Amino acid sequence: MKVLLIHAHYEPKSFTAAMRDQAIDTLTGCGHEVMVSDLYEMQFDPIAKKADFGSPKRADYIVYALEQRHGYETGTLAADIRQEVEKLLEADLLILSFPVFWFSVPAIMKGWIDRVLLSGLAYGGTRFYDRGGLVGKKALVAATIGSREHMFGSDAVHGSFEAMFSHLLRGTLGYVGMSVLPPFAAWHVPYVTDEERRCILSAYHDYLLSVDRLAPLKFPSLADFDDQMRRKISSDCSAAERTGERPALRDAS
Amino acid sequence: MKVLLIHAHYEPKSFTAAMRDQAIDTLTGCGHEVMVSDLYEMQFDPIAKKADFGSPKRADYIVYALEQRHGYETGTLAADIRQEVEKLLEADLLILSFPVFWFSVPAIMKGWIDRVLLSGLAYGGTRFYDRGGLVGKKALVAATIGSREHMFGSDAVHGSFEAMFSHLLRGTLGYVGMSVLPPFAAWHVPYVTDEERRCILSAYHDYLLSVDRLAPLKFPSLADFDDQMRRKISSDCSAAERTGERPALRDAS
Repeated sequence: MKVLLIHAHYEPKSFTAAMRDQAIDTLTGCGHEVMVSDLYEMQFDPIAKKADFGSPKRADYIVYALEQRHGYETGTLAADIRQEVEKLLEADLLILSFPVFWFSVPAIMKGWIDRVLLSGLAYGGTRFYDRGGLVGKKALVAATIGSREHMFGSDAVHGSFEAMFSHLLRGTLGYVGMSVLPPFAAWHVPYVTDEERRCILSAYHDYLLSVDRLAPLKFPSLADFDDQMRRKISSDCSAAERTGERPALRDAS
Repeated sequence: MKVLLIHAHYEPKSFTAAMRDQAIDTLTGCGHEVMVSDLYEMQFDPIAKKADFGSPKRADYIVYALEQRHGYETGTLAADIRQEVEKLLEADLLILSFPVFWFSVPAIMKGWIDRVLLSGLAYGGTRFYDRGGLVGKKALVAATIGSREHMFGSDAVHGSFEAMFSHLLRGTLGYVGMSVLPPFAAWHVPYVTDEERRCILSAYHDYLLSVDRLAPLKFPSLADFDDQMRRKISSDCSAAERTGERPALRDAS
């Protein structure tokens, strides 16, 4: 398996950096190949802009997604984008490894998403979710976070983790068709002891060993929607309507 | 009322720019004062980094939130951050105006959030949600989006808009204590006619005229959580436990 690990932390001695190193150790130890994009070290430019397009289709009025498509087809995207796209296409597993800023990725990683997940390649038109351009690849989020685990959950102060991060898990990684594994969260990191940090790294090691067996998160299937993305009446209901019967209730316990 | 409008679009002729101009016209027409931070024009640097701190507390190991607090207290934050913080503190209403990229803000605006919503000022410790540092201010999201309106909703292909954008509405603007107004979404913008665009701008005008009357979104109250952020047993339940009775069921219809 080829792995692309996107790492975003300004502090080389951070725990996020220790997680990057743990991932490299664990995954290469299993015989996988790991490519790393260290966004701060690369001084990755996160800003989506006109200059991303060497030969824009319509230089006087830039629509970013349309120019991404044109730039990819004509091979005229900026070199830093092309380089990341090539790594992404080679990868079987994408890891986003970052400290949570505002229940999301830091801006430098948001820029990697904005600029590298190209319209026309990663998605486009009605090619998203299970028809996305990156179907067949896996993705996982490995995040350090200041919150404690009990602060997430349906009745917890921040609501469920999956809801708070749905823009990333579902709306980004799921949107382009990747199989999104349950995220790995390193809780309360700024406040824990060195011993606790070692425990987290050990848990991360075990988690990474299990990536082949983890069931991905569930997202919509476009088979349930028409070409205007309106939900189709389910076949159960249709059958019931035809016969005039109500569908049987499922166990509601 | 003083308004701070954060505008993030790479194309000066974009519809997002027309919405910025509409907001300026409508709000100044009502006698409000509008400050604009045009992030692309300002070449705003979105990257959270060590150099943001002129006199870091711990230069050999940067923890961003701790250094924000120290930098704010000592007046040693980078000049571009200080300038934006001053505008934010003056404002009664914050408008984030942007094209949706990946169910969130573009990276340049994420960087404004990362760098300007300072720990120690906007939030800190158990000061968040209705105890956040910016209680008393209003905020609204004004976004252009490629999706159609029917693609959001509890049973729709992307789920509810509030859930997909909860990291921004709840986890960012609500987290710092602002009263978050219902978002204004300009649907399907890349595909609509000029006439439809004029209709959207007219609807945005009407929306902006109503900001004083709009009910804010509901977020948790920290009064319902203990100092470890675990949900307190509600007084109804406690009373029931004391008397050994079950609380009356509410109408479940």
